[in-house]
Amino acid sequence: MVMVAPISMGLSIIREKCLLKRWEHCFHKCMPRHLKKMSEEVIHENPWSVYKHDVYEKPDGSEGNYYYLETQGSVCIVPVLPDGRIVLVLQHRYLAEKQSIELPSGKIKEGTSALESAQRELLEETGWKATDWIKAGEFSPSNGYLKTTAHVFIAQTTDQQEQQLDDTEEIDVLYRRPDEFEDMITRGDISDGYTIAAWSLVRHRFLDRKNNTS
Amino acid sequence: MVMVAPISMGLSIIREKCLLKRWEHCFHKCMPRHLKKMSEEVIHENPWSVYKHDVYEKPDGSEGNYYYLETQGSVCIVPVLPDGRIVLVLQHRYLAEKQSIELPSGKIKEGTSALESAQRELLEETGWKATDWIKAGEFSPSNGYLKTTAHVFIAQTTDQQEQQLDDTEEIDVLYRRPDEFEDMITRGDISDGYTIAAWSLVRHRFLDRKNNTS
Repeated sequence: MVMVAPISMGLSIIREKCLLKRWEHCFHKCMPRHLKKMSEEVIHENPWSVYKHDVYEKPDGSEGNYYYLETQGSVCIVPVLPDGRIVLVLQHRYLAEKQSIELPSGKIKEGTSALESAQRELLEETGWKATDWIKAGEFSPSNGYLKTTAHVFIAQTTDQQEQQLDDTEEIDVLYRRPDEFEDMITRGDISDGYTIAAWSLVRHRFLDRKNNTS
Repeated sequence: MVMVAPISMGLSIIREKCLLKRWEHCFHKCMPRHLKKMSEEVIHENPWSVYKHDVYEKPDGSEGNYYYLETQGSVCIVPVLPDGRIVLVLQHRYLAEKQSIELPSGKIKEGTSALESAQRELLEETGWKATDWIKAGEFSPSNGYLKTTAHVFIAQTTDQQEQQLDDTEEIDVLYRRPDEFEDMITRGDISDGYTIAAWSLVRHRFLDRKNNTS
């Protein structure tokens, strides 16, 4: 039996597993079991997130508890200057208790799209405006604890105005070439997971890869 | 005045800013202002994490609220077979509500080190044991919502035993060459932020970079 080409690597792997197990008829027979949600409770709600408790049913029929933080989602922007340099921000992170060099990012405000939020965050944090916006991908920052998605955009910047920071922010704007930015990640000078993951999704547009033969 | 070489890129950038502002005497004069913690309250505690509320003082003296989830930290392992392939896991993620291809990862259990947790997680999820372990770096998965650190290890695997899954897990083990794994990230087949960020910290050990001249 000849199977059709998979539409993504994810499905390709599922198919591979089907074939290995000689379950050739359909994909869903070998999809891992899901934990089934039985109930959902809000433990705490604030303007930024909701802390929740789900009760789920395990495959054996017994119950389990899942505690997690849910947010509207966030955006992470890779702003590119006309000369190819990347716009970064330097700020103090309260939870990490240190200075952090990051791509501009922020939460999606209720009633606004991811793109609108990205445009607002870029302007507020860096003062830069951009005309061309490309949705480059998305990721789950912490699959175990956060129910949220981070949306990654590439923005071709045009002109810079004043930053529009709120009263808790003090942000400095930095400019680095793609290879410099990559080196900062490799050396461990950047510890922000959003920044590292977002850059990983777009770096092939700025830097090519070759197999390491050393 | 000649300044000493910075010990890291982070400090280098601070210094750059000092020089730009003609504050040449010391770094701390231009360190961004910190939000000062005034109080800390536990809203909810469970075996996996603590949900907290801090009151902090803003630079203008007024008060603000910070809600966040704190954990013991987590580990993310890049397991390498003797033939150079990377060991990955395929599992269903409850919060993301989808299949997810990831590097093995898990939380640090109280009373155990990050390395011990990494060794335990690798064995439990994949059945693989490893002799050589290298701490490759660390990152903050979500600086805005989570007070935690993810520790990244490279493990040179030796021999495989049975997986030791708990009653909520069903995990399949996959093997991919570094270039295949990288392509999966670039194509968007991998959405787990831990996996993407962890690979970003170590990819230069497996794949070289060249500047994109196209």
